[in-house]
Amino acid sequence: MLTETALADLRAVFGARLSTARAVLDAHAQSESLVSGPPPEAVVWPESTAEVAELARLSDRHGFALVGWGAGTSLEGHALALAGGVTVDFTRMDKVLSVHPEDMTAVVQPGITRERLNEELRATGLFFPVDPGANATLGGMAATRASGTAAVRYGTMRGNVLGLEVVLAGGEVIRTGTAAPKSSAGYDLTGLIVGSEGTLGLITELTLRLHGQPEAVSAAVCAFDSMAHAVDCVIATIQSGVPMARIEFLDAATVAAVNAYSRLDLPVAPQLLVEFHGSPDGVTEQAARFGDIATGFGATGFQWARAPEDRKKLWAARHAAYRAILASRPGSRAIVTDACVPISALAVAVEETAADIAASGLPGPILGHVGDGNFHAILMVREGDAEEAATAKALAHRMAERALRLGGTITGEHGIGFGKKGLMAAEHGATWAAMGRIKAALDPKGLMNPGKLVP
Amino acid sequence: MLTETALADLRAVFGARLSTARAVLDAHAQSESLVSGPPPEAVVWPESTAEVAELARLSDRHGFALVGWGAGTSLEGHALALAGGVTVDFTRMDKVLSVHPEDMTAVVQPGITRERLNEELRATGLFFPVDPGANATLGGMAATRASGTAAVRYGTMRGNVLGLEVVLAGGEVIRTGTAAPKSSAGYDLTGLIVGSEGTLGLITELTLRLHGQPEAVSAAVCAFDSMAHAVDCVIATIQSGVPMARIEFLDAATVAAVNAYSRLDLPVAPQLLVEFHGSPDGVTEQAARFGDIATGFGATGFQWARAPEDRKKLWAARHAAYRAILASRPGSRAIVTDACVPISALAVAVEETAADIAASGLPGPILGHVGDGNFHAILMVREGDAEEAATAKALAHRMAERALRLGGTITGEHGIGFGKKGLMAAEHGATWAAMGRIKAALDPKGLMNPGKLVP
Repeated sequence: MLTETALADLRAVFGARLSTARAVLDAHAQSESLVSGPPPEAVVWPESTAEVAELARLSDRHGFALVGWGAGTSLEGHALALAGGVTVDFTRMDKVLSVHPEDMTAVVQPGITRERLNEELRATGLFFPVDPGANATLGGMAATRASGTAAVRYGTMRGNVLGLEVVLAGGEVIRTGTAAPKSSAGYDLTGLIVGSEGTLGLITELTLRLHGQPEAVSAAVCAFDSMAHAVDCVIATIQSGVPMARIEFLDAATVAAVNAYSRLDLPVAPQLLVEFHGSPDGVTEQAARFGDIATGFGATGFQWARAPEDRKKLWAARHAAYRAILASRPGSRAIVTDACVPISALAVAVEETAADIAASGLPGPILGHVGDGNFHAILMVREGDAEEAATAKALAHRMAERALRLGGTITGEHGIGFGKKGLMAAEHGATWAAMGRIKAALDPKGLMNPGKLVP
Repeated sequence: MLTETALADLRAVFGARLSTARAVLDAHAQSESLVSGPPPEAVVWPESTAEVAELARLSDRHGFALVGWGAGTSLEGHALALAGGVTVDFTRMDKVLSVHPEDMTAVVQPGITRERLNEELRATGLFFPVDPGANATLGGMAATRASGTAAVRYGTMRGNVLGLEVVLAGGEVIRTGTAAPKSSAGYDLTGLIVGSEGTLGLITELTLRLHGQPEAVSAAVCAFDSMAHAVDCVIATIQSGVPMARIEFLDAATVAAVNAYSRLDLPVAPQLLVEFHGSPDGVTEQAARFGDIATGFGATGFQWARAPEDRKKLWAARHAAYRAILASRPGSRAIVTDACVPISALAVAVEETAADIAASGLPGPILGHVGDGNFHAILMVREGDAEEAATAKALAHRMAERALRLGGTITGEHGIGFGKKGLMAAEHGATWAAMGRIKAALDPKGLMNPGKLVP
């Protein structure tokens, strides 16, 4: 609860960069998920680490909660102010602080979006490869351990954050990691903070690992007569050592939605979309080898592309998928849920999930980053229809439980937030309590994003 | 201090698999480092997780320390029983529990060595790529976050351990991670335990990420007229996107030692040794592109090899380096220390270190995994010569401080143990105290490898 004294102390620090206006509070209570929560009591826009540290000292003194906010694109209610308090909007801390081309690293503030970062990097020949779809902020992506389409080649945020500056509860500022490519000097606190969803501290600076823009890119699309054949093709390609930069699966329902939306006539069948990054000769060879493997699993309707505009057309189905699915049922929201399983269990996981969705009566196309065993169901729920919302929640819950039964995890990339907290005990057992002990050690008063992730 | 009651309780669990024999205790007080410590009071050889959990319960009840032991190859005194207590020798928990070729994972016990693991994997077409040089155990490699020559391509233990079973202080058994390739379900406790050097718990099982054995391998060796040219060549090769599997640097002193030891006549100059993994056409192209880049930096004396026996000959200098350096000064021990810096600082770091060593009068060749910015000095110290030992310690200390000054870390892969604990505050500042809070949260009585890593 934000007292008048606390508010006065906050105003002294943030002045006009503090707001308690209803519209502002409500804008920071939006969520892409089915989870809803109360608005925060105030929103502040810090411009420096020192201000975030002062904010944490005031939080400690007055006992109000702090919730980080980037682009508001998280899917499990991560940034909802469940216990009120102050939402820390990082959009004014959005600078690239330095780029080190020789070391292939950049130091950035948390509020920069991944698209703007890559625009600023364009002239360097380098890029930051983690692409969760949404134009999220780097701070949010680190906090939720985001991944996306290119993770099969370049890894997730876990592997692409070298170091962090973090404001802990109470206002202490720590630095984790160094600018060296690796270290074995003590606990990997960078890795602990990445994915901690704001519950251990607020990220105020990130040192990122960059990658060389590929000299050549080759892309392909092909169709399969079953999900199982598509997945077996993925397994065989990975095992053959062909380095895929992306490999995405679309189910027949997704393709049908895209056909209707984009006036295409793609075969209404499970599809794989792949992309190869490398030298011109390298990607030619990789594409050819993929073609041989896919043909062996009955793939048909191959299309290939190298020029950027042709690749864009080829991937149109993937890029339009979300909008196409939304448009397929006007008046509905798309509830996106994810799970991740060992690759060997992917066909079973997707087929059982598809059958479960079909039996529910809700439309729910499935697509995913199959090279990682990660897939999404896009469940269509009519606005304001409580029964459909309950059905969607139950489907998402069963999809997560199915992933656990198959040796996987309740979420490959969307995180826990508030939406999946009820599944943490099922995934982690006694390990969840250990997470709680770490949380209590670093945030004994429970002021950092309370109500999320930990018991 | 191990009381008679505690010893009796331990005997009831371990019977003949407990020893207090002087020779056994002394064998577990050996270290590859300059650091020495007292022997443990007892050694036990558990055969199951349940036994390790019971051991942790007894440790908690009687207040004795637990120190894990794998192959005894760590370099900073990690496995020395500084506070007495019981050394937990994992050599009887050395099984491959399961291999999952489709998922490219294996579940192993901590006591298996990396060479035996790869022997057992040979028929599957898969291998585990982390190669720290020594034939260490996987449990020890995870505990110390080992890396080595192939990390530039395949990553370190951090990226190649998917999940762990860990016995915490007090005897609770937790599981971290899943068999899925990635997860965003909560704190990355796998990443926290990897590199925690036994201070947070004892690893009793590991789920490892495997990789496909490369279809083709190509290797090359070439010489440069200066360290700076060799390093610039590495930077240019990385930025060009040529995927190197290994890239090792040897300084002129190392080459001279190898020439004398192996009766070779390699040019006594800085050398790079590289290896490419991929398809036959792929490695041919990669090797050619490396050749072009290296020639641009003045490389000479190129030798190339593809057949395993030819590659072995080509890499003879690297493989013989440690023995050659040892043989170069009979009656001396080799003290191996490491540091890691951003690649852009590598030439300066190595050149200043070489000058410092030269000024000291001790022989100290330098070699390293330059693709990671990681390098080693092999300092030769006459057995029992306290003055030389002090000189070597001071050199190692300055090498670590230099790495920090250049934005790097005091150790890229050897870890902290006891040997580098005095440098942790310099690297981490307030962050070191945060590590201590996590340690206290998971091991409040300080029974897990006391005296190491944390404040």
